[in-house]
Parts: sequence; structure tokens; C-alpha cells
Amino acid sequence: MRDVQFQTSYLIHPAGSCLASYGDTKVICTVSLEDRVPSFLEGRGCGWLTAEYGMLPGSTGGGRKQREIGKRDGRSTEIQRLIGRSLRASVDMEKLGERTLTVDCDVIQADGGTRTASVSGGWVALYEALSALAEREGRGGADYYLKGQLAAVSVGIVDGQVVCDLDYAHDSRAEVDMNIVKLEEAFVELQGTGEKGTFSSEQLASLIAAADEGLTFIFQKQRDALKIDSGFTFRQ
Amino acid sequence: MRDVQFQTSYLIHPAGSCLASYGDTKVICTVSLEDRVPSFLEGRGCGWLTAEYGMLPGSTGGGRKQREIGKRDGRSTEIQRLIGRSLRASVDMEKLGERTLTVDCDVIQADGGTRTASVSGGWVALYEALSALAEREGRGGADYYLKGQLAAVSVGIVDGQVVCDLDYAHDSRAEVDMNIVKLEEAFVELQGTGEKGTFSSEQLASLIAAADEGLTFIFQKQRDALKIDSGFTFRQ
Amino acid sequence: MRDVQFQTSYLIHPAGSCLASYGDTKVICTVSLEDRVPSFLEGRGCGWLTAEYGMLPGSTGGGRKQREIGKRDGRSTEIQRLIGRSLRASVDMEKLGERTLTVDCDVIQADGGTRTASVSGGWVALYEALSALAEREGRGGADYYLKGQLAAVSVGIVDGQVVCDLDYAHDSRAEVDMNIVKLEEAFVELQGTGEKGTFSSEQLASLIAAADEGLTFIFQKQRDALKIDSGFTFRQ
Amino acid sequence: MRDVQFQTSYLIHPAGSCLASYGDTKVICTVSLEDRVPSFLEGRGCGWLTAEYGMLPGSTGGGRKQREIGKRDGRSTEIQRLIGRSLRASVDMEKLGERTLTVDCDVIQADGGTRTASVSGGWVALYEALSALAEREGRGGADYYLKGQLAAVSVGIVDGQVVCDLDYAHDSRAEVDMNIVKLEEAFVELQGTGEKGTFSSEQLASLIAAADEGLTFIFQKQRDALKIDSGFTFRQ
Amino acid sequence: MRDVQFQTSYLIHPAGSCLASYGDTKVICTVSLEDRVPSFLEGRGCGWLTAEYGMLPGSTGGGRKQREIGKRDGRSTEIQRLIGRSLRASVDMEKLGERTLTVDCDVIQADGGTRTASVSGGWVALYEALSALAEREGRGGADYYLKGQLAAVSVGIVDGQVVCDLDYAHDSRAEVDMNIVKLEEAFVELQGTGEKGTFSSEQLASLIAAADEGLTFIFQKQRDALKIDSGFTFRQ
Amino acid sequence: MRDVQFQTSYLIHPAGSCLASYGDTKVICTVSLEDRVPSFLEGRGCGWLTAEYGMLPGSTGGGRKQREIGKRDGRSTEIQRLIGRSLRASVDMEKLGERTLTVDCDVIQADGGTRTASVSGGWVALYEALSALAEREGRGGADYYLKGQLAAVSVGIVDGQVVCDLDYAHDSRAEVDMNIVKLEEAFVELQGTGEKGTFSSEQLASLIAAADEGLTFIFQKQRDALKIDSGFTFRQ
Repeated sequence: MRDVQFQTSYLIHPAGSCLASYGDTKVICTVSLEDRVPSFLEGRGCGWLTAEYGMLPGSTGGGRKQREIGKRDGRSTEIQRLIGRSLRASVDMEKLGERTLTVDCDVIQADGGTRTASVSGGWVALYEALSALAEREGRGGADYYLKGQLAAVSVGIVDGQVVCDLDYAHDSRAEVDMNIVKLEEAFVELQGTGEKGTFSSEQLASLIAAADEGLTFIFQKQRDALKIDSGFTFRQ
Repeated sequence: MRDVQFQTSYLIHPAGSCLASYGDTKVICTVSLEDRVPSFLEGRGCGWLTAEYGMLPGSTGGGRKQREIGKRDGRSTEIQRLIGRSLRASVDMEKLGERTLTVDCDVIQADGGTRTASVSGGWVALYEALSALAEREGRGGADYYLKGQLAAVSVGIVDGQVVCDLDYAHDSRAEVDMNIVKLEEAFVELQGTGEKGTFSSEQLASLIAAADEGLTFIFQKQRDALKIDSGFTFRQ
Repeated sequence: MRDVQFQTSYLIHPAGSCLASYGDTKVICTVSLEDRVPSFLEGRGCGWLTAEYGMLPGSTGGGRKQREIGKRDGRSTEIQRLIGRSLRASVDMEKLGERTLTVDCDVIQADGGTRTASVSGGWVALYEALSALAEREGRGGADYYLKGQLAAVSVGIVDGQVVCDLDYAHDSRAEVDMNIVKLEEAFVELQGTGEKGTFSSEQLASLIAAADEGLTFIFQKQRDALKIDSGFTFRQ
Repeated sequence: MRDVQFQTSYLIHPAGSCLASYGDTKVICTVSLEDRVPSFLEGRGCGWLTAEYGMLPGSTGGGRKQREIGKRDGRSTEIQRLIGRSLRASVDMEKLGERTLTVDCDVIQADGGTRTASVSGGWVALYEALSALAEREGRGGADYYLKGQLAAVSVGIVDGQVVCDLDYAHDSRAEVDMNIVKLEEAFVELQGTGEKGTFSSEQLASLIAAADEGLTFIFQKQRDALKIDSGFTFRQ
Repeated sequence: MRDVQFQTSYLIHPAGSCLASYGDTKVICTVSLEDRVPSFLEGRGCGWLTAEYGMLPGSTGGGRKQREIGKRDGRSTEIQRLIGRSLRASVDMEKLGERTLTVDCDVIQADGGTRTASVSGGWVALYEALSALAEREGRGGADYYLKGQLAAVSVGIVDGQVVCDLDYAHDSRAEVDMNIVKLEEAFVELQGTGEKGTFSSEQLASLIAAADEGLTFIFQKQRDALKIDSGFTFRQ
Repeated sequence: MRDVQFQTSYLIHPAGSCLASYGDTKVICTVSLEDRVPSFLEGRGCGWLTAEYGMLPGSTGGGRKQREIGKRDGRSTEIQRLIGRSLRASVDMEKLGERTLTVDCDVIQADGGTRTASVSGGWVALYEALSALAEREGRGGADYYLKGQLAAVSVGIVDGQVVCDLDYAHDSRAEVDMNIVKLEEAFVELQGTGEKGTFSSEQLASLIAAADEGLTFIFQKQRDALKIDSGFTFRQ
């Protein structure tokens, strides 16, 4: 497990912001809030959350990454859909009301796990934005709008061994690669890919066990950063 | 479980083609073969496989689907990446040599499960295209180029019950939705999403068991369509 | 003249649909209906009809056809404008009222004549959609909204001979190529091109005569498919 | 018939250029020449000709025309394909050799007939460019590379009367609208559209007769502008 | 200094139009007027002015310029922003009221100085459009809406010498290149670039002095074209 | 004058990188180096430098900035061209040889002066990248490839007073706004805009004097960050 850090209130303009680090992977997560919803939700009294993911040109090893001007690449699209679905699962959209949260995750340095750092850091920035909203609206705290605490970690099988929170060196050699997002104890997303080698039910069980350990560690780091009391329980 | 059909040699021009039906869901899968690989693979002696996914404007209920002229939508991008990764896992790229297989999956009628029908139907079209190649190259049969038989099915939790091969009515109400791709006995892709409701480890186990049953049924339908003897074993 | 078939009610979701075959050329034609018109027509009490044309990647011989993601190619644009103008000529837009008909013609297999098969098949799908509308509105039948029966055929000069309904082998060798669309007895579109060889007034007359014969045959096939009584006359 | 003018050598940079006027319609036609052909023609010893058509934002009545940045509109695409096919029919591609002629037709003022003015003016600019080429190559004159003289005119039925060379006021009221391109005596393109009203075989004959008269007038104007002797005959 | 000409009322459709020539550089400038403003200005009672700049394919030496279909090139973007800012500085937006002026500058022949010819010619077309507006609104003359007379000129250092109004041959050899826009006596834009060689404060002073001389000449040419009395003073 | 900081070696992957801060404005500048040049420079033995500029969605006050997917906005295009021209002026392209330097400037927090911070920070990152190159090539130091030290500052007239290094509050109220880039003592770029109010020659002189003071301060900050001895002189 690499070191994990969440630097809150990282930028001055957004409603919430966080610099999330999983080892050398660094992602700026920002949240903005608008008082309207996409047209397909108008008039239902429910809110919405959408996410976008990008990588700065200088973020990657092995040469500069071209900007996605002109078209979004497939990998970014897939990742931002995962981030959006995950974070939506943590928000009580009826409590939020007709508002849209936009979570931007911009990778400034990549070393594996950018999507999991984005989900966990995105949740920290979300908590910050919802705390400010709760204060304006007299709602106690961010937890009023939240169904629980959410984080993500990657696990994989590298040289036959289960590894948690893969860096780039691991990731590029992994036979199996799985991203797990949990809301408290429950799965929100489970995405396992065995493009270079398939996996059995037994291996699946080991991967999930390793992820659970990693998530316990990350949940604590989020609480430390946000100064959430360790005894605090999100009602669900 | 809905009725599943694979109509082989569906079109006259492509190297392989199949009309895959999962209930009312109908997908035209075609395979083309080129004697070159993308530049990042040149000179390595290995082949490549890529997939594209689309929906005809008249394929969906609830109104016409706009054509993706100008930009690919996020859902299509995500689906075609899943189809590509899955089918790549079934091909022995060194045996294939410096060639590219392009699998096109075009939905002419949608009623849930279009991505799983695309994977299973895509594999049937792939088998057809590789049979023709094997004949031209004197390689016995398609199995020379294949690591095994591949199929996909969706499972979900609807009103608290596990359901296999969800149609649209199920899918839109499902609390949890999972797509499972297996190469013979082993997992290739496992994508579970609990956007509307999370899921526990116990539920995960039930979903996987239901998928296994469904896949046994679909594997048999593929074999029937391709006239693969039931005793035939792919070497791996 | 090749065999011509129109398979009605081909798909379950669209208001009208048809699989049109001119020999090995196969086109899925679907019609959708919306209760609004483009902004340039708002408030005039008139309807509108627009058409789109596409080819599936596996539809063509001589290699896979790339998808038109990012931009529409010139040929498709030209064809869909012809289809739209032709079908519009058959509809009484005042009777239709402020509604838009969208006709999608997607070629699943191409062997010459895809634009003429699209026009004739599009009219069959249109008739089907307007029949359903007539029933909902208590208007008797589709003919309430129609100015007459419409079909299209190609004619050309190949090796000095006039040929009707050119397949790909003819089309690629033709000195002159002409597409003719008629609403009953009258011309709606006449597009002759002599890129490889010009044509005289006498040849024009022979081409038109050949087209008339072909159209008589196609009109009958449309009536058979739609079960329109042979004695029925569209009022105009 | 409106006044028709061709102002040759209109610009200093292109190989050939012409300002074509059909009444108030004014089109800048320029021709450039490159010593290579598109990849589908390489190695065949034949040349190619392609055309592009555009309208300046201030060219139209009824408000500014938006620039086609981002995408080509359907009408422009259709028109430029017509211009390209027509002009190609006048060039002997084997004599031209592996070169590409690009003809740009940019409308600076529109009052009906922009496509026919583009074809006729494009041919004048083409003649100018090929004259210069003939001189450099010691080929006598432009006629070495040409199959004959080419021009275009529109005809239509307005209030039941046949009209030749329609201005915008006519065009917008026409029941039938036809564009005719001839290479000397023979048809190259014939595009008749009866969107607002169909046409009979008799009407077709009258339209063609009117076009012939108009073309005689335009052919003479081209010869005057290019100082081609009235007795000169293009060998074909 | 090259010859400078402004041909007013160049086209029949736009509110104002001008063919501006700086030597062989020729730009068609047209102005259109709409009774609405962009959304960011709605309800403020102020007008807006925006500019677009383009080059026809046959306008340049050294080969055909590709059309900017699909994307705007960086140089054009930079130039049209300069033209827009410059012309906006000459208009009293409160007097104009909630209207938008769109100035299109289309280069038909380029020989250096296209951006300065566009600014000066754009102002002439603007004056013409505002004269017509003043007449309709009973406002006396165009000067009601204007803060003053505006023109632009380029200056540069070529082979160590200061040159005013650079043609292409000068421009491509210039060590320093500066564009200066003045509203009467005052600077509106000053853009100096020393990409090929830096410049000192003394050189800056000489360049500005040369520009002042050039602008005096151009201001007079604008007045001649628009028939503005030489004694007339714009109130500011 | 606001505080100015350059944090060198900010990221691990790029050849050079710097976090530049001008007050609350923060820009990540990264430099990558490739062993090839754009096609228009091939075979001349000279190098090239290009710049790109972007803003993260959470970087701005007054709401989220939309990503430039699909098209580059005009302001970004204009800025990145300024950055590129400026930085190119500092590099000796013949010494660099056939290599391309790409400088990416990504604003993570904006409070006025993002383009000047990008130029000055870009030069720091450039120095870092060229130091590493000099070491690999045995060239002593970065100064081998450089014509001198380069920095930029903005100056403006706010409420009639000259201000140096404008923050957003100043910038949005400024009557005149000027960006000045100097290579040592000499001007490289001078871009003054008086959209909201013109400026006189006297004001121009005061603005330039204020910029000179600001640049002295920024040059020193660059030297401190890069540990360039204060007595060191770039040969030119």
C-alpha cells in the first residue's frame, strides 16, 4: 500500500477542492455547484452529479500526453463515467434538490490508480462543497446530503500475487486488474478485467479481501483530512 | 432466461457475420480482417483486435436515437471498449500474426443486454472469420487462433431477486446490474454497478452463480450455431 | 430487373419499419414521428419530413466501411438529401399538421441501388407509420396524409445497353447512371450523371422508358407488401 | 435570360481565376494545380479534379449566412459534388497526367443560380489554368487537355411557365427546378427536382429546350471572355 | 506606402460593405446588424460588435490555402479577435442599444497587411451600416453611434530600416513587425512582435512615428470614400 | 507588485517543470523534448518550440470553466500563440538542432496575469529542460541553447493610475491593459489594448517604465529559483 494523502481546500475558487495523492499519483479534484439540473431531470425535485476526468500533458511518463482537443479519448470517457456513477451513489439526490454537482478530476502526475484516487479525492472535495452548502442552508453538516462515506482502490494479480493500490510498474505487468468502489461496507462498483489473463472465483475472493483492507486505510485518511470524528456514523 | 439465437453467415461481404438475438435484442456482428496492425504493434509479430458498437436510430423504444455523427457518446465508447477487451482475451495474438480483426456490433433492435449479445455474437462472427482464415492458411480450424470459447451475460437484482439476462423492463428497474464475460470457466470481465443501490458480498456470490447458469446455456447456443461438436475442447 | 422485396413491420419500436431488398442490396428503413416541427416552420400548421442515410461498416464489398463519426461523408449527405426531397413530395404537409417524420435508411448490405431501395422502402415504412397515425386520429387510412404512391429506380447505360436497377457490377461500369423517382405518373426527381461518358437526348428517352417499366414492377411490390388493393387510387 | 459575364484573370495568385456573374449572382472561381493525385489514383498515370463551394457570410439576402466552421452543410456538399463531377467530365485525365486540379467556387453575392454560375465560371478558370500549363509543357493550348466546352444553366417552371436562368425570386417560387450541364451538345448532368410540384414528360421536354437556348448564349459568353475564336472546334 | 482604396457599397445584401485594398491585398468587409445581443449582455441596454476573418482558398501565393472546415486555425482566431476589439473601441455601445454588429472580413487576395486592411475597411463598412441605421432611427448620421474614426497600419523593421504598410515580401523578411490601431489620435491596439529579432525603446519610437504618418494617409482615404467632409469632427 | 514564485522540478515525468505563482495565479509549466521537428522545418538543422495553454475547470472564479473539448476557444488560442512566440525568441534554434520543445502551461488557479506567469514560468521550465539536455550532450549549461533570460509582466491603467502585474480585480476594471515580454533589455512582445479606453503616447511611456521595474523583480525571482548566479551573463 502506497502513502495516501488528501489536501483539502486546495484551490480558492471552487465550492470544494482537494489534491489527492496515491503515492506519486496526484489528482486535483474540484467541485462546483449550480442551481439547475439537466433537462431530463427538470421538475422532479432531484439533484444530479456529473464528473469529468482529464490528464495534463506533462502528467505521464513515456512522453507528453496530447490534449484531448477535438475529441475525448475512449479511456477518459470510460473513467469519467465510472467516477460519476460512483460519486452519485454517495449522494441523496432528493435532499440535494434541483442542483447539479460537477466534479472535475485532473491528473497532474500519473503513476497508476488515477481513477481510484479521483473517486476518493472527489468524495473529499464533495464533502467540502456539501459542508459549505449545509452551512448556507442550515442543515447541520455535509452528511445531511450524503448516504455514506465512499472510496476506491485498485487491486490486481501481479506475477501471481495479489497487490493492493497498483502503481504504474505493477499495473502494466498485472495479469488481472480490478477497481473496487465501496460506500461504507457495500459495493458500488466492481470492475475486473483479465485482458492479459483470466481469473478464477478463488482469485476474485482474494482480490476483494485485499481491497477491503486498502479501503479501511483510505477511509481513515479521508476522515483525517476532513476532521471527521472517528466515531461519527453516516445515517443511511 | 430469454431465448438466445445466433444466425451465422448473415451478410455476404464480411469475413464473418452473425445476427445475435437475446430475446427482442438483435445485434448484427461483423468481422473484417486486415493484413496490418496499428503502429504501436508494428514489427512485434502479434495481431490486434478492435471493436466498435453502434445503435441504429430506429433500434430503441421511447423515441428515435440520434446518430453519433460529430461525436461518439460516452455509453457507446464504454461499451465498445468492453467488447474489444473481451474478444481480445479469446484470441491468441501470436498465432494470428500481424493482422487486425475489427468487430462491428450494430444494434438493430434494443431490449436490454445489447453489450452482452454483442460479445457473444461477436465471438460467433469471429469464429466464422477465423475458420475461413484457417482454411486459407491450412491451419485446421478457427480453434488454432483461439484460446477458448467466450460469451457474456448480464445479471442483476430486481425487486430484491436475482435475474439473469435482463430485458429493458428489468434493467431500468434493477438495483444492481452486472455484466460477466467468461472465457470457458474463467472470468475475463466482471462489471458490477450499484448506482441505484449497493450490493453485499453475499449478493455478489448469488449474481455470479446465476451468470454461470446463463453462460452454460449461451455457450451451447453458440456451439449449435457454429456446429461445434459438443465434445470438442479448445486447447488453451 | 432484380428481385424486389419489402418486409413490413420489421422492427418493434419505430412507428413504421421495413426491410427493403433490391437483389442483394438490403436497407432497414424506419420512420419516427414527433409532435413538433423545426423552428423555421413553427406556427404555420404544416408538417415536415427529414431523412438520414447510413451504411453499416460490414455492408460493403472491398473492405470495411469506416463509420462516419466526426463527419458525414459527401456521398451520404447527397443521398440523404435526395431521399428527403423525394419522400416529402409524397406527403400532404397540411394534412400532417405540425409534426415531423424522420425516415432513417440504414444499409446493411450494399450491391448497387441503395438510394433507390431507400426511397421505395422508406415510402413503405412511411405508409405503415401513417396508417397507425390515421387509426389514432380517425382518418380512415394512410392515404389521408399522402399525395400518392412513390418509388424509385436506377437506370443506366452499360456497354452501350440500357439497364434497369443496376447492381454494383453494372454500376461501376456504367457510362451513364440515372436515378428516377416518380409519384404515380409524374417525375419527382431525375438525376442523371454522365461522368464517364455524356448522353444524348435519344438516350435520355430510352432511359426514361426503361425506368417506367421498372417502376411499374416496384409499385406492385409495394402494394403487395402493404396489402393495398390493386384497384385503390390515391386521390391527389 | 439575365446578363452573364466572365471576368478572367481576376486574382494574381491562382493558376486560373474568374469572376462569374449571372445577373446579381457573383462567384469567384479559382483553380490551383498540384503535381500529385489522391492516393486511390496513384500510379495510374491519370489526373484528378476536385471542387469546393462556399458562400461568404455577407453574400445572401435575408440575413448573414453563418460560416461553415465545424461542419459543412448539406446543401454545400451536394453542390460541390455536382460542380466536381461536371468539370471532371470536361477534362481528359490521361492527358493531364498525375496532377490534381482544385476548383474553388466562392459566392460573394447570391441571387439564384450559384451552382450553375460556379460550373460555367469554373470552366473558364480551368481553361485559363490549362492554357498556362499547355504553354509550360509545349502543348499548343488548353484544348489539349479538354474534351470540350462545358457550361451549366438552370431552368424551371414558375407559375406554369418555363423560365431559363432563375434568379432568387423565381427560384423560391418555382414548382420545378432543374440544373443542366452540357459538354458541347451532350448532357453531363441533369438534375430535376419537383419538391413543390411534380412534372410530366412533356414539361421535361420544354425545360430541356429552354436550357439549350440558354446554354448557347453562355457558351458564347465564355468564348468571348477567353478570346476563343468562334470557329474553333474542340476535338473530342 | 502602397496605394490604399476603399470601394463602398460593394455588395447589395449587407447593411454595409466595402472592398478594401492595401496594394495587392484585397479584403471584402461586410457588416450585418441584428436586433439582439449575446446572452451575457442581455438586459443591459448595450450593444455588441463581433468580427470574423477568413481567407479564400485562392487568396494566397505559394499554393492553395485549405478551407478552415472542421476547425479554425490559430492565426485566423488571433486576427479576428484583434479586429473585433479594435472596431468595438470605435462604437458607443450605449447609443447602439441592444443590437449586434457582425463584421466579416474575407481576404480575396493576400499580399501582407490583411489584418490592418480588415480593420480599416471594416470601419468603412461599419460607417455605412450605421449611416443607414441613423437614417432609419432619425439620428442625423453614423457619427451618432461612433466615438471617432478608426484605422490600422502595420510597420516593421526590414534590413534595419523602418517600413510602413509591409507587403508580403517585406513582412516575411521583417525582424520586427508591429500593428497599430488608432481611434483618432489615441492608441487602441499596439501589437509588436520581435520573434526574429528583438527591438529597443528607440526603435519602438521610430515605428510609432512611421505608423502615425501612414494613418494620416489612410484616415484621408476613408473620408474620401465615405464622402466625410475634411472639416468634420467626431465628438468623442 | 504581487509576490512571485517559481517552484522548480515540480513534477517527476517532464524534462522540465515549474509551478509559477504571480499572487494567487498559479500555472503548471512543463516542457517536453522530442527528437524531431514539424515537417515544414525538416532537414534545415534547426529546432522548434511550440506552446499550449489551458485552464482547469476549477481554476476560475465566477463559476466553472467548461473544458475545451471539441474546440479551442479564441482566448486560449491567442494566449498560446503569444507564449510560443515569446519563448521561441529566447532559444538559439541552430544550437538546439532538429528537436522540438513543447511547453504546456496549465492554469490551476487564475487571478489575473495567467499569460505573463505562463511565459516567465515557461522559461524557468525551459531552462530546467535545457540544463538536463546540456548535461547529456556535454554542453556546459542551459545557456548554451539560450539567447538570454526572458520574462513577462502585465501593466495597465486602472482608475487613471499605472499598475504593474494586475490581479483580476484590477484587470477587469483596467482602461488599458498591456503585456510586455522582454529578452534581457529588449522587447520581444508588446501587446497593448485599450478596448475600454484608448491611450496616449505619454501613457505608453509610463506603462513601459512600470513594466521595466516589474521585470527586474521577476528576472531576479527566476534566477533565485534556478540558482543562477547574479553575476552570470548570457552571451547573446
